[in-house]
Amino acid sequence: MTFEQAVQKLNQMEKALYALGHAEGILYVDGETVAPKQSWRARGNALAYLSELQYQQMTDPEAGEALSVILSDPEGTDEITFRRAEVLKERRDKTQLLPMEEFVAYQQLTNEASAVWHEAKLQSDFASFAPYLEKIVAFRRRYAARKDPSKPAYDVLLDEYEKGADMQSLDPFFKTLREDLSPLIAEIAAVPREKPAFMTKSYPVTGQRLFSEKIMALEGLDPERCSIGETEHPFTGGPNKWDVRITTHYHEEDVTGSLYSVIHEGGHALYELGVRDDLQFTCLGGGATMGIHESQSRFYENLIGRSRAFCAPLLAALREVFPEQMGDTTEEELYQGINLARPSLIRTEADELTYPLHVMVRYELEKLLVAGDLSVKDLPGEWNRWMKDALGVTVPDHRRGVLQDSHWSTGYLGYFPSYALGSAYGAQMLRRMEQETDVWGPVSRGDLSPVTEWLGQNIHQYGRLKKPKEILEKAMGGPLDASVYTGYLKDKFSRLYGL
Amino acid sequence: MTFEQAVQKLNQMEKALYALGHAEGILYVDGETVAPKQSWRARGNALAYLSELQYQQMTDPEAGEALSVILSDPEGTDEITFRRAEVLKERRDKTQLLPMEEFVAYQQLTNEASAVWHEAKLQSDFASFAPYLEKIVAFRRRYAARKDPSKPAYDVLLDEYEKGADMQSLDPFFKTLREDLSPLIAEIAAVPREKPAFMTKSYPVTGQRLFSEKIMALEGLDPERCSIGETEHPFTGGPNKWDVRITTHYHEEDVTGSLYSVIHEGGHALYELGVRDDLQFTCLGGGATMGIHESQSRFYENLIGRSRAFCAPLLAALREVFPEQMGDTTEEELYQGINLARPSLIRTEADELTYPLHVMVRYELEKLLVAGDLSVKDLPGEWNRWMKDALGVTVPDHRRGVLQDSHWSTGYLGYFPSYALGSAYGAQMLRRMEQETDVWGPVSRGDLSPVTEWLGQNIHQYGRLKKPKEILEKAMGGPLDASVYTGYLKDKFSRLYGL
Repeated sequence: MTFEQAVQKLNQMEKALYALGHAEGILYVDGETVAPKQSWRARGNALAYLSELQYQQMTDPEAGEALSVILSDPEGTDEITFRRAEVLKERRDKTQLLPMEEFVAYQQLTNEASAVWHEAKLQSDFASFAPYLEKIVAFRRRYAARKDPSKPAYDVLLDEYEKGADMQSLDPFFKTLREDLSPLIAEIAAVPREKPAFMTKSYPVTGQRLFSEKIMALEGLDPERCSIGETEHPFTGGPNKWDVRITTHYHEEDVTGSLYSVIHEGGHALYELGVRDDLQFTCLGGGATMGIHESQSRFYENLIGRSRAFCAPLLAALREVFPEQMGDTTEEELYQGINLARPSLIRTEADELTYPLHVMVRYELEKLLVAGDLSVKDLPGEWNRWMKDALGVTVPDHRRGVLQDSHWSTGYLGYFPSYALGSAYGAQMLRRMEQETDVWGPVSRGDLSPVTEWLGQNIHQYGRLKKPKEILEKAMGGPLDASVYTGYLKDKFSRLYGL
Repeated sequence: MTFEQAVQKLNQMEKALYALGHAEGILYVDGETVAPKQSWRARGNALAYLSELQYQQMTDPEAGEALSVILSDPEGTDEITFRRAEVLKERRDKTQLLPMEEFVAYQQLTNEASAVWHEAKLQSDFASFAPYLEKIVAFRRRYAARKDPSKPAYDVLLDEYEKGADMQSLDPFFKTLREDLSPLIAEIAAVPREKPAFMTKSYPVTGQRLFSEKIMALEGLDPERCSIGETEHPFTGGPNKWDVRITTHYHEEDVTGSLYSVIHEGGHALYELGVRDDLQFTCLGGGATMGIHESQSRFYENLIGRSRAFCAPLLAALREVFPEQMGDTTEEELYQGINLARPSLIRTEADELTYPLHVMVRYELEKLLVAGDLSVKDLPGEWNRWMKDALGVTVPDHRRGVLQDSHWSTGYLGYFPSYALGSAYGAQMLRRMEQETDVWGPVSRGDLSPVTEWLGQNIHQYGRLKKPKEILEKAMGGPLDASVYTGYLKDKFSRLYGL
């Protein structure tokens, strides 16, 4: 195979994989948002066939040859083509670990598990979900053993979402988070502080929908390229930079819940919307790793969205849509309200300070589950025990406990640490950003463009073109340092609570 | 190839075609409803690849052999398998008329034309759409010439949507409609009648959304299997009986617009929802022809939805959601209001009496366009002239004129007559239904189940299993007779207007 033929084959492969991934992605978004409930019965058939085709593309011997030809000539290949071959080679190696039947069966399993989880969560019924989770854990363990039998299975899975992450690096990371934050969380819990008045009002869903549009505009999301839907568990999807989808979930009694979901998913969306045009429709047209993706979502959600400066434009937007509910709320009250720090049950609704401990609980439980040291049957009990131990809260039911997150139902074992890592990355990025540009002046005037431009320059534009470590260390100005993140949190919350 | 091998190949082919059609269908529905505007830029890439795969499946020589083996043994093959082979053979023959490049290019053309039409309609700008329509007409003419050079091109296209339809049968059909209805339309136009008060009120979109749910429930649509979205031009989609989608369009100043869109699309949906389980995921799992499909949608919309009996449950539903706007409207006023007959501009909003003349105008213009006797450039002028001539209305702009319908942008040349044929079929079906079951008692109590059961038994369940003519003549109790339809209209509207 000549080099030209190899590149041609690569292009054919990308064209097919793009189209199949596009269809699969839209079927997923549609299934989670507007599809009728029983549609899952047949969506699996369609998805299974698309998976088969992806599998065939990935494992095609000719594709293997083409990738080898390209990868054997790093000097003669342009950067984009070389990196595409590198990323596809990695995916090919992963795909080849499984026979097609198993690959497709797994897609069907997670499709079904996802539907079952939705219902189980509504009913707070762990027993109906347990058999699916057992199969998923077993599958992921088998997969990890095949991929690298020399490593603990959980290390293999962690690396899938965050290149290079393993228990050796994450154990001390989470230890720092817990040791640095637990005393402050306890101190704050002793400070009496009430919800400000605006947080006790009712916010009709129709108003919140309109408010979401305002928040998206404030965040700088182009409505012609990014739309919003409604799901039980918010997420970001969409196949390219002209077609990004975010979702949120409305609660009448809590306007901040959806607000921060929208800002969070909007951060993911800005990443996808900012990837360079010449990487679109290739395997490089998306976020570099899950941790880097979460660094972006949590950057907007917390570092910007829960900052003192952002309270000015936020209050203005709230007043516009909800003049009655906001009454005479001041910026300072708003700032206190959106940063109320209290141990709580739900990760996605947790405040910025206690949030990382929610992630830590999942990390510890996943370690045990994947190692085979904890059975699925015993998981709810352990969940409740860990939540009591780490956060001091008593879990009243599985809906607000072990069933709250969708991740495990879709096979995402090892994903959760990305949230805490992303938050930590973000704190380091912010420090650099502040050195290079005026962040808070524009933010206080409702202009987030300097933030998005800086992140666009340093992170978004590259998609998967650069290696994650390279992108990250450049943007953070050095390696990961958990104490920057905990330092930021301690500083912010000590001031907020006058400690 | 043995018979067993042939059936196996048929099953493989159906599995692939189902999955690709499912994905394609959802991408289409998504694109029309919630996708961000610019998403069309890349959806075409994905759809083009799915089309390529469908083309390959359809034209695979092995598939040809398998179909021949099955079709050569009508005695030894069960009814379903034989009919599947027959339907696929017909599609294969059609697909093979075009080289793959042309097949895929056409999908891309209509995808792009559809986006351009949306914008052109908004701007009332025919010139921007004209080049696309020219290409589409040229393509469809070429296609027709290849399919059957012995026939006029328009006859070939008519047959695509309504098996057996041609100009020889449709010319007298439309002539009867015009001759029978025009005098009555003129007479009625001279009767002064005002809109009842409820039709001059404003109906907020949020209320209308809730009302749509009530109407869907009244029509007997299972919300777990059929969901509703919003589009410029309402339609029905969805890949199987567990996943049907309808759409509507809300106007604050007109509650009946969306009401009858919902009932109309709901009729299409009931057809899809009622196809037998054992035909699902095969090429038989859908409506028999477009005319029969429209007979169902227009059955619910007009014969039931605009009947005197339906006014009782309809008024109750309206009162529940819009108590203020409905005031003390009586059933009789409602009946008069939803049957106001006046020549108007928009087909989808036309009353039941003038509607067939809107279709006739399109039929006459399509005949000329496809024959090459009318250029796209001259189409708007001819449109306006025909509307004046047939309905006496002056078209103020292209948005409310030649650009109002989406059909031509998606290549549906020859589709429109299905609406009038469907209406005529429905009138004959109703006559038979009334002989066999009590229609109006239950309808007046808000129970449409006897109607849906009768249609389910006679039409829905079969999907494409029976030949269209067989289904139709059994359900109508004989061949098409336009005078039954015009008789029904003359009777209903003479009474309504006291003539």
